[in-house]
Amino acid sequence: MTDKRIYAFGAGKADGNTGMKQLLGGKGANLAEMAGLGLPVPPGFTITTETCRAYHDAGKEMPAGLMSEIRKAVAVVEKHLKRKFGQGLLFSVRSGAAASMPGMMDTVLNLGLNDATVETLATETGSARFAYDSYRRFITMFGDVVAGVSRKFFDAELDAAKKRTRAKLDSDVSAEELKKVVGLLKEVYRRETGEEFPQDPWLQLERSILAVFESWNNDRAIEYRRIHRIRGLLGTAVNVQAMVFGNLNDNSATGVAFTRDPATGANEFFCDVLFNAQGEDVVAGLRTPDDFEAFHERMPKLADELLEIRSSLERHYRDMQDMEFTIEDGKLYILQTRNGKRSARAALRIAISMVEEELLTREEAIVKIDAGSLNQLLHPTFDPKANVQVIATGIPASPGAAKGKVVFTPEAAELMAHKGETVILVREETSPEDIKGMAASQGILTARGGRTSHAAVVARQMGKTCVAGCGELAIDEHERVFRAGNIVVREGQYISLNGSTGEVMLGDVPTVPPELSGDFETIMAWSDEFRRLGVRANADTPVDANKAREFGAEGIGLCRTEHMFFDATRINRMREMILARSLEQKQAALAKLLPMQREDFVGLFRAMDGMPVTIRLLDPPLHEFLPQDSAIQQVIADELEVPVRVVQESVEALHEVNPMLGLRGCRLGLTQPLIYDMQVQAIIEAVRDAERGGAKVEAEIMIPLVGTVDELRPLRRRIEAQVERFNLEKQAKVKVKIGTMIEVPRAALTADKVAEEADFFSFGTNDLTQMTLGVSRDDAEKGFLIEYVIRGIFPTDPFATIDAEGVGKLVEMGIQLGRKTRKDLKVGICGEHGGDPESIEFCHNAGLDYVSCSPYRVPIARLAAAQAAIKAAR
Amino acid sequence: MTDKRIYAFGAGKADGNTGMKQLLGGKGANLAEMAGLGLPVPPGFTITTETCRAYHDAGKEMPAGLMSEIRKAVAVVEKHLKRKFGQGLLFSVRSGAAASMPGMMDTVLNLGLNDATVETLATETGSARFAYDSYRRFITMFGDVVAGVSRKFFDAELDAAKKRTRAKLDSDVSAEELKKVVGLLKEVYRRETGEEFPQDPWLQLERSILAVFESWNNDRAIEYRRIHRIRGLLGTAVNVQAMVFGNLNDNSATGVAFTRDPATGANEFFCDVLFNAQGEDVVAGLRTPDDFEAFHERMPKLADELLEIRSSLERHYRDMQDMEFTIEDGKLYILQTRNGKRSARAALRIAISMVEEELLTREEAIVKIDAGSLNQLLHPTFDPKANVQVIATGIPASPGAAKGKVVFTPEAAELMAHKGETVILVREETSPEDIKGMAASQGILTARGGRTSHAAVVARQMGKTCVAGCGELAIDEHERVFRAGNIVVREGQYISLNGSTGEVMLGDVPTVPPELSGDFETIMAWSDEFRRLGVRANADTPVDANKAREFGAEGIGLCRTEHMFFDATRINRMREMILARSLEQKQAALAKLLPMQREDFVGLFRAMDGMPVTIRLLDPPLHEFLPQDSAIQQVIADELEVPVRVVQESVEALHEVNPMLGLRGCRLGLTQPLIYDMQVQAIIEAVRDAERGGAKVEAEIMIPLVGTVDELRPLRRRIEAQVERFNLEKQAKVKVKIGTMIEVPRAALTADKVAEEADFFSFGTNDLTQMTLGVSRDDAEKGFLIEYVIRGIFPTDPFATIDAEGVGKLVEMGIQLGRKTRKDLKVGICGEHGGDPESIEFCHNAGLDYVSCSPYRVPIARLAAAQAAIKAAR
Repeated sequence: MTDKRIYAFGAGKADGNTGMKQLLGGKGANLAEMAGLGLPVPPGFTITTETCRAYHDAGKEMPAGLMSEIRKAVAVVEKHLKRKFGQGLLFSVRSGAAASMPGMMDTVLNLGLNDATVETLATETGSARFAYDSYRRFITMFGDVVAGVSRKFFDAELDAAKKRTRAKLDSDVSAEELKKVVGLLKEVYRRETGEEFPQDPWLQLERSILAVFESWNNDRAIEYRRIHRIRGLLGTAVNVQAMVFGNLNDNSATGVAFTRDPATGANEFFCDVLFNAQGEDVVAGLRTPDDFEAFHERMPKLADELLEIRSSLERHYRDMQDMEFTIEDGKLYILQTRNGKRSARAALRIAISMVEEELLTREEAIVKIDAGSLNQLLHPTFDPKANVQVIATGIPASPGAAKGKVVFTPEAAELMAHKGETVILVREETSPEDIKGMAASQGILTARGGRTSHAAVVARQMGKTCVAGCGELAIDEHERVFRAGNIVVREGQYISLNGSTGEVMLGDVPTVPPELSGDFETIMAWSDEFRRLGVRANADTPVDANKAREFGAEGIGLCRTEHMFFDATRINRMREMILARSLEQKQAALAKLLPMQREDFVGLFRAMDGMPVTIRLLDPPLHEFLPQDSAIQQVIADELEVPVRVVQESVEALHEVNPMLGLRGCRLGLTQPLIYDMQVQAIIEAVRDAERGGAKVEAEIMIPLVGTVDELRPLRRRIEAQVERFNLEKQAKVKVKIGTMIEVPRAALTADKVAEEADFFSFGTNDLTQMTLGVSRDDAEKGFLIEYVIRGIFPTDPFATIDAEGVGKLVEMGIQLGRKTRKDLKVGICGEHGGDPESIEFCHNAGLDYVSCSPYRVPIARLAAAQAAIKAAR
Repeated sequence: MTDKRIYAFGAGKADGNTGMKQLLGGKGANLAEMAGLGLPVPPGFTITTETCRAYHDAGKEMPAGLMSEIRKAVAVVEKHLKRKFGQGLLFSVRSGAAASMPGMMDTVLNLGLNDATVETLATETGSARFAYDSYRRFITMFGDVVAGVSRKFFDAELDAAKKRTRAKLDSDVSAEELKKVVGLLKEVYRRETGEEFPQDPWLQLERSILAVFESWNNDRAIEYRRIHRIRGLLGTAVNVQAMVFGNLNDNSATGVAFTRDPATGANEFFCDVLFNAQGEDVVAGLRTPDDFEAFHERMPKLADELLEIRSSLERHYRDMQDMEFTIEDGKLYILQTRNGKRSARAALRIAISMVEEELLTREEAIVKIDAGSLNQLLHPTFDPKANVQVIATGIPASPGAAKGKVVFTPEAAELMAHKGETVILVREETSPEDIKGMAASQGILTARGGRTSHAAVVARQMGKTCVAGCGELAIDEHERVFRAGNIVVREGQYISLNGSTGEVMLGDVPTVPPELSGDFETIMAWSDEFRRLGVRANADTPVDANKAREFGAEGIGLCRTEHMFFDATRINRMREMILARSLEQKQAALAKLLPMQREDFVGLFRAMDGMPVTIRLLDPPLHEFLPQDSAIQQVIADELEVPVRVVQESVEALHEVNPMLGLRGCRLGLTQPLIYDMQVQAIIEAVRDAERGGAKVEAEIMIPLVGTVDELRPLRRRIEAQVERFNLEKQAKVKVKIGTMIEVPRAALTADKVAEEADFFSFGTNDLTQMTLGVSRDDAEKGFLIEYVIRGIFPTDPFATIDAEGVGKLVEMGIQLGRKTRKDLKVGICGEHGGDPESIEFCHNAGLDYVSCSPYRVPIARLAAAQAAIKAAR
């Protein structure tokens, strides 16, 4: 605990800096940093987070002496600006903790206005309309966030005034009318709070500061911290800063700027300016902003000053910046700077050019790229040259470029999808009943809900594009139509959704296939230098394997052999085997599958020449090969020339209450050894054939669902004997490694024993998550999981990002125990987590040797693996 | 490694003793011990296990110099007995490792006989028949176990001879005929091995010893050690011992004795003697043995000598002994002694009286009792006074006293059970298709298979009586009849099965209710002194609770509230709640259930006055309350006056692919809070009501299926608020503890976090086992689990005895992490493992505070807990 409770900033100096986020909050520390850099930040001061803690510790008492310290700090600001608080000097008051926390009180602007000072402002600015509009906003904000009066009461008065005067926009309301509105708002305030609206600026300030302190512990903030696992913070800081006005006169302006092009990453200043306007006007989009050229023409000195600030900020923060600035009567102020959002393409370009400019080391550049955003580059995207009409923008909730005909009900989605149409499901919001309709759609567009809404969570889980919370939409499900502004879209019309930007576009916007730039190759090459983790792909066919190699995979980490059985030409052989009553019949059916499997493997080995290929023996339960539907059962019975009763009895016999915990994986291998025998034989023969053809083969046989070494041992012995027999009979030299999935919790818990018989481990974190959490993935989409994620009971979808605390602990135990027995044990992961950047960082830190993911995620994994290595080395 | 390879015993001294089992094997060490005690053991010697190891290490070479050492050892025996090997002195050769191992070669008797010595034996004994019968047996045994000739070839010759001479029994075959048979057997030997039957006694001996060494590493022995996890043994020892013959003349005899009555435990000598007979004759049961009185009358000196041996053995081994002895021409030999098997009643009596006799301390006496056997005393048993006709005896595979009509097919079992008949299913052996029939039966009787056969494992899992492997049975399923000796039993006839003894009895044998003796109370009182673990019961009703108290339970560890909903009068209220479309309807249905639940709890609290009662909130998924059958759905729809469509939709909506991992437990509590609200309200009101009635209440609310503290926290807060509100409104002082089940692996892995919000933990090891092993218990009986247990992949049924290595590791982690956060955390177990002695020992060692089990297992748990504490203290 330091004694200093107030940190001033402004006029080229500051008590704090960007390293003091714990004490000053993120906002306060950044304002201090900029002021310290000599940037023109409107002066002000930050009350520390410790002061907030002291307030709460003291049972919500204003700390003794604080107000007099505040008066002194205000006096410093007055001295800088040569204006008196409440007489030309107004303040903004903002909360700001070390972590961003939307649950708290946000902002009170124009503090210091009262019935008298509003007139001063009108006189000084020459605009009564401006002064009274500012006063109106202040009363509303103060009433809402400080006094707890519902905003709707205030808004109702303004709406009534607009109606009365037939004004369309807020700005159409006259000064005269606004003055009346102010009177009515004060009336509302009195009615709702039982007291007059405070006229004393000092009282306004004190109450606003206390309200910020209070908001630290309101229910929403507590809940937010709980959900986001924000712990160990002292409280919120309070930022009190002088107001500046870009709408004061024609010598004023407001603007936003990106230090580089956020779309391409080109090192070009990107700036939008509105003269004689304020921030809100930019956001409202009512006027078309001018560009930097126009700005420079009109205010050359200020524009040059901004250019200099641009470079000094980039040099200082070593990243592309997104700045807000205001010019008040010929003087430039910087109100905010932060790292700017950018497209994936821009991210790569900026990273590389900042290295070239020696602004960043390669390590630093790598870490700054959002690995997940590479997805944009690897999948088809909307043609940037297309002439698009954006009709609304929502929250980019699940990435992708989706287009299709609009439908308004899940039933319609299913029906049209069934007819071969591609559809976009448009809903107010989605619920578990909509699951099937969502699955039938290309994309989902909702009017309500954020990134953790049902629609968003389910869409990400399904890999569907989703734009959520698009408030501009007015949906009429009954009439089968939605409106976005003046645009009306009816069921059956085409729209396109950009899940990465949240844009909703009219019509069937053309897409372009991904084109990988030189920048992409450069970043991949750098990543490969820094990463320790190997990256393999999950691939079942030569086509997938080639795609994976193209993207830089160093082997196949998971080939799911069952996928080879589901092929239309093969599934009946599999069914024959299942329905066979005698050993001979079973063997005959398997003998037909053997050459097919062998050719599959030969193809894979050739494609992956010189790289390891991990082949998992049959994993799913046999009932997945038989239909539940009685009509289809009849068809199959006819095809296979068996009585339908045989099919029915098999379905009945194979039925399980909990198939997830049932007869599959190595349990099948142990109780029905013929299937694995056939698969192993196919692998052995394929190794020999591919090697004869000149390929270098590293075959790894992986046994799924092992829970105890006593399952693995006999299976391993049997495979070894089979290989030995083959080599003896055929005078061959086939070699295979034999390893196991670690996906049953018990296998991780007893990994020291399991490692006695395993050449390698591969963590199957999909199933491991199901069993460790006791959550069925098959039921997840309509079940409680969605609600758990929305409510923050699970911090993220545990099937998307590994649950490091629970499942991760088992993974760590498994690695540690396994390597205790076998020092050189090779350990990988082949669950879907292998392609998720956050999970990859976990994998690096846990000491895995490689991750394996779908071919399209290989580049993401390479980058994420490099980032993890760089971060860990720090 | 010691240099000494041969340990002699006999004539009152021995090189070894009972502590040398690792080196001499169990058999050798015990023979040495008895010889060392001065007991009349036929002299011989033991070749060490280290010698066996040396044999294998040397690539199966007879260790250099061993045969000459053996010759010296034989010379010592010859000197004692004043007979020459091969001339009056014959040997038995037996294997014997430190652990009992049926997979190895067992015994060769009469070694030393050849065409010459058989005549000597005939002359010396005066019985050519005896001599040639001995020779016949020797050739068969040697041929079978040493030379690997199938026994059936030898047996066929004897059978042919019997047919030829119309002999019924082996003993009806004349000396002359046996001499011919011997010739034929030697012919068989030559035919099958290509060499003559060895005539040199030394060669016979050497080859037999090598065969024992070999048998250590045959497939069966390796498999046996693997299954029984026998590790770290050096090899097998070889015991070479002089033969003695109880059938030499009328001054000879053979017998078995128990030092105390194995049925009652009374301190009375229990002895069966056959004069002029040998061991095999006793086993064959062809002659009725004489008792000790008759023995004493005929051979008073030898009988007195035996009595003295009885006391010295009991004093020495400090346990009731089961002895085998032989008298050869007036000289008594002890061939074996071991701790005798006994009934539960006898076990208690013997334990107590040995303490009174100061043979044992109370701790030692407690540990010697088989805790599981108490089951016999707590359930109805066959009336010991009943006149029973035992028609066969099999392996006692699953305890109990079952009786019913014989059926031969599972279909018949189901059919007759449906008609209200009690049935016993009699099968050659059972298979997964028989499951339903087994479930419909009172008991199961099989002709084949042992304690790990399908029938045995499933029966124990179902809690059914089972007698397995009853080889005397000849079953004709087609004729629906079985034969046991001369007895013929047809379908529909009554039989009775004693699952504790393996006896099969004709007719409907009457049973008697259990009567707890003073001995029982004494042992329980001693147990309570020694045990540290608390013992609670799982009970849902006041009747169960009272039974539990009677048996000594110290509280209720698990009250399953859902059992209260399945009651016929209540289930429709539950269904009403599930089918309700509006909040009001739901609340209305729950309001009807509230007073019922409250009265349930009041009853429990009163019954357990002064003791803790742990109440688990609703656990099963809601679909369990709705029928799958469409006809019953219609009935319910009519009763509840809703369209049947509503019921169908609910069933459809609640359907889950994997209900085990589904929407139940706290997941229900979080997503449908009204149910828990009602239950908590009922508990709160019941505490108040019961306390007003004078009861002292310790209510513990337990939340099931918690996987993360973020589930437990909001539920705990909600309950706390509800209690606080009630106390405020009703001016009450209700207090409850709030804890959680630990049954999801993740909860154990993150128990430090979970403990932040839990007053207590209770390990639900049923579900924890399902998830940790990935095995569905609902599918276990017809699934792979049975096969896994039979094949030894799982050492025992993990749902019967806790999997200490896997699930146990999670339990230990859970306790350790939980107590790290909350030092005084109370930790129990409420899965079915809580009543299993082996699991209870695990619980003690893991540091649990209490176990909770079904009321009938409470005494077992008390004893097992004491045993665990005593063993741990050693």
